[in-house]
Amino acid sequence: MGWEQAWLTYRKQNNRNWEPYFGSIYADGEGKVIKTASKELKRAAREILGREMKDSGQEEHAGIILKLVPDLGTGTEGFHIKERNGQIYVMSEGEPGLLYGSFSCIRRLQMEEEFQGFDKKEIPSNPLRMLNHWDNMDGSIERGYSGNSFFFKDQRILVNERTVEYARLAASVGINGVVINNVNVKGNATRLLDETYGKELKELADLLEAYGIRLFLSLNFAAPMELSGLSGADPLQEDVREWWKMTMARLYQRIPGLGGFLVKADSEGRPGPFTYGRTHADGANMLAEAVQPYGGVIIWRCFVYNCMQDWRDKKTDRARSGYDHFKPLDGAFRDNVVLQIKNGPMDFQVREPVSPLFGAMEHTNEMLEVQLAQEYTGQQRHVCYLIPMIKEVLEFRCGGLGRKRVRDVISGGGKGQRCCGMAAVANTGNDENWTGHDLAAANWYGFGRLSFQMDLSPEEIAKEWIVGTFGTDRKVMDTIKKILFMSWPAYEKYTSPLGIGWMVNPGHHYGPNVDGYEYDRWGTYHRADHLGIGIDRSEKGTGYALQYGEPYASIYGDMKACPDELLLFFHHVPYVHRLKSGKTVIQHIYDSHFEGAQEAKEMAACWESLKGKIPDFIFERVKKRFDHQKEHAEEWRDQINSYFFRKSMIEDEKHRIIY
Amino acid sequence: MGWEQAWLTYRKQNNRNWEPYFGSIYADGEGKVIKTASKELKRAAREILGREMKDSGQEEHAGIILKLVPDLGTGTEGFHIKERNGQIYVMSEGEPGLLYGSFSCIRRLQMEEEFQGFDKKEIPSNPLRMLNHWDNMDGSIERGYSGNSFFFKDQRILVNERTVEYARLAASVGINGVVINNVNVKGNATRLLDETYGKELKELADLLEAYGIRLFLSLNFAAPMELSGLSGADPLQEDVREWWKMTMARLYQRIPGLGGFLVKADSEGRPGPFTYGRTHADGANMLAEAVQPYGGVIIWRCFVYNCMQDWRDKKTDRARSGYDHFKPLDGAFRDNVVLQIKNGPMDFQVREPVSPLFGAMEHTNEMLEVQLAQEYTGQQRHVCYLIPMIKEVLEFRCGGLGRKRVRDVISGGGKGQRCCGMAAVANTGNDENWTGHDLAAANWYGFGRLSFQMDLSPEEIAKEWIVGTFGTDRKVMDTIKKILFMSWPAYEKYTSPLGIGWMVNPGHHYGPNVDGYEYDRWGTYHRADHLGIGIDRSEKGTGYALQYGEPYASIYGDMKACPDELLLFFHHVPYVHRLKSGKTVIQHIYDSHFEGAQEAKEMAACWESLKGKIPDFIFERVKKRFDHQKEHAEEWRDQINSYFFRKSMIEDEKHRIIY
Repeated sequence: MGWEQAWLTYRKQNNRNWEPYFGSIYADGEGKVIKTASKELKRAAREILGREMKDSGQEEHAGIILKLVPDLGTGTEGFHIKERNGQIYVMSEGEPGLLYGSFSCIRRLQMEEEFQGFDKKEIPSNPLRMLNHWDNMDGSIERGYSGNSFFFKDQRILVNERTVEYARLAASVGINGVVINNVNVKGNATRLLDETYGKELKELADLLEAYGIRLFLSLNFAAPMELSGLSGADPLQEDVREWWKMTMARLYQRIPGLGGFLVKADSEGRPGPFTYGRTHADGANMLAEAVQPYGGVIIWRCFVYNCMQDWRDKKTDRARSGYDHFKPLDGAFRDNVVLQIKNGPMDFQVREPVSPLFGAMEHTNEMLEVQLAQEYTGQQRHVCYLIPMIKEVLEFRCGGLGRKRVRDVISGGGKGQRCCGMAAVANTGNDENWTGHDLAAANWYGFGRLSFQMDLSPEEIAKEWIVGTFGTDRKVMDTIKKILFMSWPAYEKYTSPLGIGWMVNPGHHYGPNVDGYEYDRWGTYHRADHLGIGIDRSEKGTGYALQYGEPYASIYGDMKACPDELLLFFHHVPYVHRLKSGKTVIQHIYDSHFEGAQEAKEMAACWESLKGKIPDFIFERVKKRFDHQKEHAEEWRDQINSYFFRKSMIEDEKHRIIY
Repeated sequence: MGWEQAWLTYRKQNNRNWEPYFGSIYADGEGKVIKTASKELKRAAREILGREMKDSGQEEHAGIILKLVPDLGTGTEGFHIKERNGQIYVMSEGEPGLLYGSFSCIRRLQMEEEFQGFDKKEIPSNPLRMLNHWDNMDGSIERGYSGNSFFFKDQRILVNERTVEYARLAASVGINGVVINNVNVKGNATRLLDETYGKELKELADLLEAYGIRLFLSLNFAAPMELSGLSGADPLQEDVREWWKMTMARLYQRIPGLGGFLVKADSEGRPGPFTYGRTHADGANMLAEAVQPYGGVIIWRCFVYNCMQDWRDKKTDRARSGYDHFKPLDGAFRDNVVLQIKNGPMDFQVREPVSPLFGAMEHTNEMLEVQLAQEYTGQQRHVCYLIPMIKEVLEFRCGGLGRKRVRDVISGGGKGQRCCGMAAVANTGNDENWTGHDLAAANWYGFGRLSFQMDLSPEEIAKEWIVGTFGTDRKVMDTIKKILFMSWPAYEKYTSPLGIGWMVNPGHHYGPNVDGYEYDRWGTYHRADHLGIGIDRSEKGTGYALQYGEPYASIYGDMKACPDELLLFFHHVPYVHRLKSGKTVIQHIYDSHFEGAQEAKEMAACWESLKGKIPDFIFERVKKRFDHQKEHAEEWRDQINSYFFRKSMIEDEKHRIIY
């Protein structure tokens, strides 16, 4: 299967002003990553400007100079670009910084912006900027909506031209770490730790390293049992600890550049320290100790909850579980452990409050996990630009108003931590356009850019991505930007209302099913009856709201203060409860669903207005998805509205058709 | 995998009175089936009485005489058993009759009944007494709850010792035809028509024939396209017709005893005559013509409906579809075509009205289809004795009160038809006990016996089956009988109420999900809102009730006259509507669900009281299923009650816990 270039789709341009710079290049040294940077600049020059850049032996004669400068203040991944007298200096303390600087120059080319007088210094916001691929070794992808894996096929690791292209795309937006295998580590994936796949893993690690990316693996906590027949995996047992030390020693000998490991333990059936009466700190620290000599990092997921709950049980609250499990362990984790926390307390719903774990553990490294794979947001058949949502999460003042924001916590603030940052469940696959829906690539692009530079606005990011992908045509740019910014609000409107979430078909999570998870074991309920809907998570209810610092504990805990969009997450209210918007809850449900479905139609119409301005095959590919989205949004609208009308028997004030 | 003997579990007995009969046997002729009969009698004598029966050369010295008697008035499948002076004569016009008579004698042995003066003439009620196996060639079984297929494995046909045991069990209850492959004919199963599986099919047909059973196949209407690349399968196109004639000629040359074919056409995505603008009569007649020279029969299923319905559409009524499609074709089918009609208009729900197609086509052969596989009645994890339900269907006066019953229609009445009878979707698999749940074997047994002798009562059948399976212990007999007769009513009580059906999880159809099919495409809705529930199928609604003859059109069409158990199938009524029972609909829902779950507990307790009286491994195996049923019945109770309480907000008069 072939592939396309996504946002690195270079288009010919005729800007004479640029020619002086892109005539020749001087690269400082023979490093792998510098070579990559030089190669990328040459490719861009060739494809965009039709010029073959020459290697210049002397700095003073080169158009572009890639230069390592000690003590520049950029760190190894930051860069300083400075145009002076017809020369562009790309400078950094490290090779990766030069690569990122080079891609920054290329972006400028694509954006058709001038270089004269250009002077820009950029330091990445986050030490770790990662993609988590949930790819299985049989080639399938858990929650994958873009074809099959390009990392695995038939229990083998793939290292080929496409892997290079993947690395280019990832590096171009600042990704510096990738976990290639599913967090649910089963079967052969457990063997990624031993010699079985040693050669291919090394090849892959080398390939990625040339793009400044470190390879990470998901690991199976029960590996000592599965691989070596140990009787258990107790993190405090000596033979288990020794096993891990030995295993890591061998692994790092084969792949010295390995970044570390992502661990899903005691979560949805995966093995973990609870089996042995040990804490998650015990589990994580055992692994951290084993990888510490090699600079390795243990990324420990906090997605731990009771997934065998009884729906009749109204006391247990899944939302509480992350905080309840991990907060008491603050300070107990080693320095090379970082807790990876999902943005919300549930599971990547279209709207959730920010997880109260952020900022709650002052002596523990924390990292944000978001999901680009649109598991609950339309599975890349609906368009849903998630960057505004991620931005909201980053800006949330988790430590209370006036105090630290999530972005401050996860970036390590001034503490100089190297074990923190942002991770995203990737939305990629081997589809020709990488992300199934062409517009879903904006999320991949955007996540990378935002993780590198959290100050960027979703608007700036959208603009960059559109230009990189579709070029600089004004109408194309305006129209796609309009679609992107309509998409998340529209999806929220026509799916589950006011922060309550779920209401999807169980298992595959696609399409409406109001009671789909209502009588199930997953802890995800709406408790709708004839009179009202929602979960009381205030002090009088499950107490979840109290997990927040002030003023959020008070705001969320008070039905009157709670923001409309999260009302049903925190409170059980009558359908006739009046929102801050002035509407009743039930009228809001009706209105937002009619609006959302209408907006899906409008987005589709917007896309259709681009016919002729987008390559035909892309136009048609995306049009098909919009055709489906339009229809499916109506299905959502009608099911949700009918469900609540039949239950509440309250008429729509506007007398629209509800079934 | 081994297997057990089900109701042919012979137990040692010491009845001296029987010895004279079971000392020797005289068999009239060398026919295959007579040999089987003789072999079966000898096996029973050996295992039950510990005697080796000798072959007697002379009729007058034999204890049992198997004798073909022309013009006896029994037909070839009926028999006359007569004890006289210490000799038992088993007589028939045909070999199968002698086999059935022999099994009748064996049953008498098992029941410990005397033979002296025994004189019994029995003629089967139905010409066709069939099992439909929905077995796939990969060994899976569609809607199979008893393990894998014993007919197919890894795309091969199995013919082995277990097949013989299957034939014994089937013949012992009077089954004379089996369709071995799934009605959804795909992949290699289409090739059952050509030479691919010729040898094994012939072996299997021969094996079954020795037990008086004819082999039937399900066929793929699009076979001419799939097997020979014809451009279509239009039943009026000459090359298609020729293809079928040629194919059948070859097939019958290989397997002359082949009974015929079962066809699912234009149904749930299967190909059929509609594609070519032809009628089902055109399709069936084409096939019938092709098999007529060989005495073959075409069994054409009437399960034709729109499975892509929009749930918003309240006019289209799936219940109407069988009648609407087929009634206009009355008289258009050839003599060797029989329409196989499911007992109800929907799909094997725990309660449905009898299909109005029965008796509606005076010039067309009709046959009843029931489902022993408990797809919607607990999937052989719950006990559900279905014979009382089948009996109700048979006794239904479809031609109106005082006129013909379903049993009269399907048995061909006095018309001497050979193309009619009863078919059941089998509940068997390669589990050791054949039917997953040991008690589910009562349905297989009962269906065979009832199809042979429709006068039998469910009580008589239950008694025979219990004795054959578990012996004659009084307490065992009484207790299991009690369980069997509690089971269907209990299942009806704790699942969907008052004839509305469905409310199961989509796809696999197990467990409660009130809205599972409510917003789906299958035409199966309950339309519950805050005030009421049900489908108006009266004259003012979809008009389905008018498909019945009088007085049923009037009874079903009138909310006041309609029987409680079918009320919601025919009418949309308020929850406060008062049933004939004096209860409101909502109170009936609550009460019946509490009762049903309680009865599940009682049945489980009944079973537990048998500890020590049933072989341990069987006791434990069944106990596990009861443990699950108890719990699952509570899940049903709580979900259904909670759903309706939350929707109606009407309190349970008895203030029990509803969530």
